[in-house]
Amino acid sequence: MSEGFDSLDPDPEEFRELGYRAVDMMAEHFANIRAVDTFPETTPPEVAEEFDDPLPRDGEDPEAVLAEWNERVYPNATHQGSPRWYGYVMGSGTPIGALADALAASVNMNAGAWMGGPSATEIERQCLQWLAEMIGYPADCGGVLTSGGTMANHAALYTALQSATEFETRESGLRSIDRPGRFTLYESAHEGHSSAERVAEMIGVGSDAIRSVPCDEDLRMDPAALDDMLTADVENGRIPFCVIAYVGSINVSTVDPLAEIADVCADHGVWMHADGACGAVGAILPEKEHLYEGIERADSVTLDPHKWLSVPYSCGCVLFRDPDAQTQAFSMHAEYLDFTEEEAYHGTNLGFLGPEMSRPFRALKLWMSLKHRGVEGYRQLLRQNCRCAEHLHDRVVAADDFEVLQEPNLFIYSFRYLPTDLRDAVADADQREAINDYVDWLNQRITDELRLTGEAFVTTTEIRDDTAIRLSICSHRTTPADIDTTFEALREHGEHIDAEGRKRVDSEFADN
Amino acid sequence: MSEGFDSLDPDPEEFRELGYRAVDMMAEHFANIRAVDTFPETTPPEVAEEFDDPLPRDGEDPEAVLAEWNERVYPNATHQGSPRWYGYVMGSGTPIGALADALAASVNMNAGAWMGGPSATEIERQCLQWLAEMIGYPADCGGVLTSGGTMANHAALYTALQSATEFETRESGLRSIDRPGRFTLYESAHEGHSSAERVAEMIGVGSDAIRSVPCDEDLRMDPAALDDMLTADVENGRIPFCVIAYVGSINVSTVDPLAEIADVCADHGVWMHADGACGAVGAILPEKEHLYEGIERADSVTLDPHKWLSVPYSCGCVLFRDPDAQTQAFSMHAEYLDFTEEEAYHGTNLGFLGPEMSRPFRALKLWMSLKHRGVEGYRQLLRQNCRCAEHLHDRVVAADDFEVLQEPNLFIYSFRYLPTDLRDAVADADQREAINDYVDWLNQRITDELRLTGEAFVTTTEIRDDTAIRLSICSHRTTPADIDTTFEALREHGEHIDAEGRKRVDSEFADN
Repeated sequence: MSEGFDSLDPDPEEFRELGYRAVDMMAEHFANIRAVDTFPETTPPEVAEEFDDPLPRDGEDPEAVLAEWNERVYPNATHQGSPRWYGYVMGSGTPIGALADALAASVNMNAGAWMGGPSATEIERQCLQWLAEMIGYPADCGGVLTSGGTMANHAALYTALQSATEFETRESGLRSIDRPGRFTLYESAHEGHSSAERVAEMIGVGSDAIRSVPCDEDLRMDPAALDDMLTADVENGRIPFCVIAYVGSINVSTVDPLAEIADVCADHGVWMHADGACGAVGAILPEKEHLYEGIERADSVTLDPHKWLSVPYSCGCVLFRDPDAQTQAFSMHAEYLDFTEEEAYHGTNLGFLGPEMSRPFRALKLWMSLKHRGVEGYRQLLRQNCRCAEHLHDRVVAADDFEVLQEPNLFIYSFRYLPTDLRDAVADADQREAINDYVDWLNQRITDELRLTGEAFVTTTEIRDDTAIRLSICSHRTTPADIDTTFEALREHGEHIDAEGRKRVDSEFADN
Repeated sequence: MSEGFDSLDPDPEEFRELGYRAVDMMAEHFANIRAVDTFPETTPPEVAEEFDDPLPRDGEDPEAVLAEWNERVYPNATHQGSPRWYGYVMGSGTPIGALADALAASVNMNAGAWMGGPSATEIERQCLQWLAEMIGYPADCGGVLTSGGTMANHAALYTALQSATEFETRESGLRSIDRPGRFTLYESAHEGHSSAERVAEMIGVGSDAIRSVPCDEDLRMDPAALDDMLTADVENGRIPFCVIAYVGSINVSTVDPLAEIADVCADHGVWMHADGACGAVGAILPEKEHLYEGIERADSVTLDPHKWLSVPYSCGCVLFRDPDAQTQAFSMHAEYLDFTEEEAYHGTNLGFLGPEMSRPFRALKLWMSLKHRGVEGYRQLLRQNCRCAEHLHDRVVAADDFEVLQEPNLFIYSFRYLPTDLRDAVADADQREAINDYVDWLNQRITDELRLTGEAFVTTTEIRDDTAIRLSICSHRTTPADIDTTFEALREHGEHIDAEGRKRVDSEFADN
């Protein structure tokens, strides 16, 4: 190295020691993962105070920087990797995926252009084909990995909208279309996901463009209602451009009737998008295969490997049945990719197939995770999650202090704590309304208190306007024993909060 | 663990061994980084064939999976980390950042909501403040880390557009605005970046909305020309909504005149976006500070830590002078974030401040890298890059077989190989055109051939319609000795390709 020149590199031996120490920290974390609290004891202001240092002027030893992990970062972490993390839809992370992320970062290839990442590009291409094959999607599809489900949906809906305008708006803009009427898109009234709203806003059609299609009693989109709505909307001058079918919905992990929706979309000439961010990979389970019939007819499919495939954050994915539509939406010329070799040297430029241009080597963690366990291994893991959801349902059915709100679908299951003496009152439609505010409050309070104890991370949702306890069971580590522990904890918190709550309610009644 | 239940976890001791092996691979890579070829010897079809395995049915031992790194992935990698990687604007990666990525992936926090990532959220917030302070941006700004520069620009331009429509289009869509005219945005005619085009398309204004503002002879935007253009455009019924000023441009790393552009934007009431993805962090250099005056007046700034701060892919960033504008553009309600605790428990939800919702813990690698070297350390590193660019310029000035095309700015420098006997001909405007095709071809061919040898990764660009050799010197490892080696290699390839090329040209002449 030239005189007086410096770099960010530690000495090679120092790096090795640093790296071993990081691995030790990770090994310790994985070894304790069943024991660790899912949520820290600290509040937002306390965590903010912990990270209130002035801008570092002079550097610190890398050992000291790494030691901060155990001193400050880890104690204020949540633990999605825990078998008792049931919040949102969080993949629990694969240990080999964490090593893959480090390897990828060490070589630091940019997967935006083939020239920047030859093996990164080809591994991503291979992963896309594998994912397509896993869910029964055509092998000659297009696709790209994204930073997550929202950006995967963005790529799909943006392409759908461009397709509806015959790609004329890429240059001229959305306002150039002089067809009167509003571009509209469609999703289940009950199970819509907020990413659809975010994307509708970002692509310029606005969130009011989303039309809510009625559901059946299992909270699945009603295809006949969709059919009617599309007909009526066109008559009323709207321009339907996309129907979103959920493949593993956010509240109850139901799968919309894909084949019937595909028929309706075909009849009306509307793009069908299957949002399988949460549940598309469930198609590898033979016993669930019937739910996925028709997914191969969707124009686009999203599926997030960082969700049910447990690949570490972040790794989303979108597939396109017609690769040309994807290319027409995202292709670009870049003068920095001009060169004199013949075509055979050019390769695929993934930065011209999705929203991002420069891109990380996301595919490595997915590739290594898929190779580690194979489809058979994942089949076993996904099946475990489904069995846990069924086990939880069995517990709820058998309990006289919980209420069933749904039949189990895949891995997300929602239900309600309902004190035994209120059961009859709730069964009566007139009385239900009167006590519902209290039961809503009770269920919210139970999950909040459980979360703060760190025993399990559980959230609520709304099922038919009632506040429900929701468990998203997608950790590869969760067993029925974890479900039992969590169920008992919910009951314990329920009894104690209900006892406190009745006093409050009684005193409120006494006040009136 | 329950009977018969499985997971993706290796045994803890097995994980430790796997991890040590991965660290050894990384340590070896870093130790050899000055010697390794920048580009693999393989072609796209060969790499594609290397990754043509059938979908893995049964799993493999994790040791075998990890071994693939050395067998297949690494031999087909490019090496952005090399001191002689001068392509695009690629950060070279910090070793501590690679370990940070592994630690982040092992705990796998989702930084989309505070509830999912308490320390991830607060560390990101701290990093945003540090970055703002580093470039002299207001400390009370908003901001968010993104997956890269395109998405950072997306967040900025999308917010600018919403702001121009008074945020009325979030729900109602862009077509609901009945103001006639075209929304337009502005960038330098010479130094525009393709991400602006991509974003203009994605937010629905279309790429033709981009107006090219004339430049001065140093390829900086001409503020007077901008002023005139804005006036004329409004008179012609256009609706200017954003001016993009480049802070470290893509071809020559120039900085547009920020203070003067800010004045023009203020006069016309147009959002000013400073695209500093490549060069904003250069503001930490006192000797360059004058270039950055006015950046604090930009409504938004992008700066990519994965570029000149060498943080591993991917880590982009956008800052907003008015945090409310950011919030108004991206805020959402999510029922899964309802709970009963008081406000103080809620924290910041970063997923409601940018395009993504679920998000990885990108900030850790940035935080650790900044702490490792501090501002003083980075000052030294950035200065090295600028010194290398100046050194290269000196070599070009002193050479009689190279042509100067620009004065050096920050770290990107473009110039031309020009055989000695063609110098006089090219100096003559009439003759220049006649031989330019040949010189263009020659320069393209030189960089292509050099790239394929793996000695250095160099690209071309166009400077005033001439094909130029472009070196982006942003590796923290590059020294003047690397520049000398590369310069000599370019000359050597130049001489040999020119000799071959003349024969071809002569025979073409002979044929005519």
